[in-house]
Amino acid sequence: MKRIIVLGGSFGGLTAAFELKRHLGKSAEITVISDDDRFVFLPSLPWLIMGHRRPGDITLKVAGMLGPKGINFVHEAALRVEPETSKVFTASGELAYDYLVISTGPFLSFDEVPGLGPEGGHTNCTFTLDHAVKTHLAWEKLLEDPGPVVVGSAQGVSCFGPSYELAYEMDTELRRRKMRHRVPIIYLTSEPYLGHMGVGGLGNSKRSFGDAFAEREIKAIVNGAMEEVVPGEIKLKDGTKLPFKFAMIAPPFKGVPAVAALGNPRGFIPVDKNYRHTKHKNIFVVGVAMAIAPPEPTPVPVGVPKTGFMTVKMAKTAAAAIAAEIKNETPPRPEELDVVCLMDMGNTAALMKASPVLPPRQESVTKMGLRYRYLKMGFEKYFLWKMKHGLSRLP
Amino acid sequence: MKRIIVLGGSFGGLTAAFELKRHLGKSAEITVISDDDRFVFLPSLPWLIMGHRRPGDITLKVAGMLGPKGINFVHEAALRVEPETSKVFTASGELAYDYLVISTGPFLSFDEVPGLGPEGGHTNCTFTLDHAVKTHLAWEKLLEDPGPVVVGSAQGVSCFGPSYELAYEMDTELRRRKMRHRVPIIYLTSEPYLGHMGVGGLGNSKRSFGDAFAEREIKAIVNGAMEEVVPGEIKLKDGTKLPFKFAMIAPPFKGVPAVAALGNPRGFIPVDKNYRHTKHKNIFVVGVAMAIAPPEPTPVPVGVPKTGFMTVKMAKTAAAAIAAEIKNETPPRPEELDVVCLMDMGNTAALMKASPVLPPRQESVTKMGLRYRYLKMGFEKYFLWKMKHGLSRLP
Amino acid sequence: MKRIIVLGGSFGGLTAAFELKRHLGKSAEITVISDDDRFVFLPSLPWLIMGHRRPGDITLKVAGMLGPKGINFVHEAALRVEPETSKVFTASGELAYDYLVISTGPFLSFDEVPGLGPEGGHTNCTFTLDHAVKTHLAWEKLLEDPGPVVVGSAQGVSCFGPSYELAYEMDTELRRRKMRHRVPIIYLTSEPYLGHMGVGGLGNSKRSFGDAFAEREIKAIVNGAMEEVVPGEIKLKDGTKLPFKFAMIAPPFKGVPAVAALGNPRGFIPVDKNYRHTKHKNIFVVGVAMAIAPPEPTPVPVGVPKTGFMTVKMAKTAAAAIAAEIKNETPPRPEELDVVCLMDMGNTAALMKASPVLPPRQESVTKMGLRYRYLKMGFEKYFLWKMKHGLSRLP
Repeated sequence: MKRIIVLGGSFGGLTAAFELKRHLGKSAEITVISDDDRFVFLPSLPWLIMGHRRPGDITLKVAGMLGPKGINFVHEAALRVEPETSKVFTASGELAYDYLVISTGPFLSFDEVPGLGPEGGHTNCTFTLDHAVKTHLAWEKLLEDPGPVVVGSAQGVSCFGPSYELAYEMDTELRRRKMRHRVPIIYLTSEPYLGHMGVGGLGNSKRSFGDAFAEREIKAIVNGAMEEVVPGEIKLKDGTKLPFKFAMIAPPFKGVPAVAALGNPRGFIPVDKNYRHTKHKNIFVVGVAMAIAPPEPTPVPVGVPKTGFMTVKMAKTAAAAIAAEIKNETPPRPEELDVVCLMDMGNTAALMKASPVLPPRQESVTKMGLRYRYLKMGFEKYFLWKMKHGLSRLP
Repeated sequence: MKRIIVLGGSFGGLTAAFELKRHLGKSAEITVISDDDRFVFLPSLPWLIMGHRRPGDITLKVAGMLGPKGINFVHEAALRVEPETSKVFTASGELAYDYLVISTGPFLSFDEVPGLGPEGGHTNCTFTLDHAVKTHLAWEKLLEDPGPVVVGSAQGVSCFGPSYELAYEMDTELRRRKMRHRVPIIYLTSEPYLGHMGVGGLGNSKRSFGDAFAEREIKAIVNGAMEEVVPGEIKLKDGTKLPFKFAMIAPPFKGVPAVAALGNPRGFIPVDKNYRHTKHKNIFVVGVAMAIAPPEPTPVPVGVPKTGFMTVKMAKTAAAAIAAEIKNETPPRPEELDVVCLMDMGNTAALMKASPVLPPRQESVTKMGLRYRYLKMGFEKYFLWKMKHGLSRLP
Repeated sequence: MKRIIVLGGSFGGLTAAFELKRHLGKSAEITVISDDDRFVFLPSLPWLIMGHRRPGDITLKVAGMLGPKGINFVHEAALRVEPETSKVFTASGELAYDYLVISTGPFLSFDEVPGLGPEGGHTNCTFTLDHAVKTHLAWEKLLEDPGPVVVGSAQGVSCFGPSYELAYEMDTELRRRKMRHRVPIIYLTSEPYLGHMGVGGLGNSKRSFGDAFAEREIKAIVNGAMEEVVPGEIKLKDGTKLPFKFAMIAPPFKGVPAVAALGNPRGFIPVDKNYRHTKHKNIFVVGVAMAIAPPEPTPVPVGVPKTGFMTVKMAKTAAAAIAAEIKNETPPRPEELDVVCLMDMGNTAALMKASPVLPPRQESVTKMGLRYRYLKMGFEKYFLWKMKHGLSRLP
């Protein structure tokens, strides 16, 4: 019986575990290791910040999802992987694997800009449940004592969506409360233009985001590179100073320390089309942990986003490849990676679609409309229901 | 009985006088001083230039409006104000006041560009009835002998609307006459981009004005700074030469000489939220005469417009503050100043709305449609009827 | 009986011959000289390249069109014109004329960029039937072995429409075949901005073409000046290198050698409003052969297009002037030259209209919609039917 270890209990880890179980049944022992015993539907964190969701609405217990499927769960941090001996080390010991799936997500690299981040720094963050809860409190404080807002992304960021969502949502909410004129909003980004998103734009995203920002009078600073953050002020490398009462600045990502040694200098791990490690053939890597090169150089560096949608697709491909190898079958031909993204805009929403993810593309679209907001709300409910029941095979 | 003097007989002066009378009745003696015995509905001057209105259509006699309300009218120029002794001086003597409302409008500062303006210079103007009548004759001459047109605004201008209206209206009228191809139109402006309007744009005005200009093939020169005007040619500071057969260039404004000493170097007078002079507490200043700082620096300096709509609002606030003080009541909390503007575009029109006037704003919109043209026509009739009957309290 | 020689058997030559015959009947002997015995409906060549048309669908025999109308046809190349003696020389001898109509179209000046063109160079061309047939084969090869595409125009080009059509059509066809992501498309042009078309743009063509390119993810390089083409790569003067598997680059035009001596250094012949040679009064020149100055300087030089639509109008005006002179009548006042253009975009099309051709204009429009695609298809059939029956007088 093959021992398969999955590192990570979010989109990629859970999907990989469910899919491996579905393919392999009792012929494999599958163990998920994660230092977080919750699955959080991360795309809803901007709504949590705005007060439209509570943590319980978007959280599931990992053990409760894995148990009924016969998948082991180790609630511990993985400390180190030893590929030569095929072992994972945790504080309480070591686990041997025949196959390893790494889906450890991002390490939030706040240190790259002095003063960045909610832990010792002066800016808020949307990328974890705990950060989002803290950001929600900061937002409530802003509503009581309004002032300038800066929302955006530092240099090197690869995940721009939540910052856009927050800018749009805050604008909408402030107008609803008739206090938008007391809160100037600056969107600060390392992107070379609005709607670039790290992927060279999608369809006419440049113009449609530009129009939306103009209509909402959200002032954009593109090609922004931050020097440091001090209390109440962001300093850019070009000397610009941006005072704020509320700032949410996305940090750049790195690979998490436990697996970074398997990857490039930023800790992202190189893989082939099946998400198999280019050197260690029994290791697969999906989601933020794996490496994708940017499609084009930009004045200020940016990365390629790896969304939950993409991560789930990667996990399915990797699981199919592992299962095929164990069963001595031909693995299915891996699909070209594409992405569909629903971005909330407060009083409307955007559907963004790219196939494949990076140009040149067969399909590439940005459309706006209120129906995409309802679609996003519906998808959140559906996905949480699906994960709760381990129905990873549903679309 | 308190003596209140109002300087100026246009939007601000008449509104202030009517409102003060309404608040104070016989307990105050109100005197309007103006060197012009006509009230002119200035927003219709572009229509007069195009031949759609005659002077009589948009003019009311000031004495006929004030008399029935028991308000005095002195048809004389105010020469000087002496705030220390609370006196206004005219050629025929002096008048003492307990309160003074200054609503003297702009001094057209043609001298700032050699050759600018219709008095000794070579360009036309839309800002007074007499200038507009002269400009109408120049327009008729152009229709007989077509050639290049330059419409726009010199550096330091704060009132951009009429120049836009004229550019759009001339384009429409020339196409109607099947002679647009014989009249190249250049829109020359000190604004940093089309649709800036001195207020940093309103909603998507940048793109919607840019689109409208492209569709009409009106060539725009932004960040334009004029060196001088010679007969038939405008010279810019960057060396560009713009030949013309017809030119209408808005001049920068200053405060009028009679009150300029009460204000900043350009003669605009600093006030508080109730439009009370920051130093002389029994003087109130409304409309163009009072000072507003620009919302942002621009490559070529521009000012903040003070429209008739805004001036009327200011006059009501100032009158309420004076009346409250005289009656020993608490003055109503002054409203944040907003603006609604209907801009004719010949074959369509734009509604522009900003609340407050300067960013950040709760509301900011630019919309285009033929209905706004009919709305503007209707508003002209309504407002003239309202002023004729002294019904300043109607909206 | 007057002898009239017409050089050229395409839009201008045939229209001139038919019109002269219609005006003059048996009182003139009309002879068309052309080295091509086919009339090709050139606007359909992009469709031929895409495989939507075969040569027979868009070709008529010139002799079969002229014979029934009593017009002579000499299937030979004109070698030289001697205006002093009013003679045209061919390989087999000389022909004397009382009037000469020159409608010889373009000489494709590939030599101006080393490596340009399908004859000895490395790029394809859309401007002749033979080139288009060759380009169709290159397109089929690309579909089998996909890779980067560069479509566009060299410096000095005056005819941009077919390059745009090809870029749009290739994009559409590649998406239909689900292989667009394997073919990055670059649109390289000497125009200063998208939609300039050599005429300073038409209405909002700049934005609407820019939007269409963004939506289709066709990357544009404007102000492009080519240094040379080597196999599989275009080098620009600024050092940029554009690798390609398929390249279609429009060459600049010159006047054809047989008549170039009558014109300016590029061989384009100066004419008056009736298309009469400014010096040789019995010579008329229509279509590409005649000279029009560009409306404005551009960073990289471009020329003014002379479409089939324009050429037909010119030919009618010239024929009317010749006929009037022969019949001793007053010639009709020549119309201002305008243009209507239907540009295919694969899954939609654009209607472009300019009246007159160059700014300032009475009318100037760019509209997009599928109906214009059907209109273009219908017009092709109608025009070929009309020419086949010599019905030049129909609109």
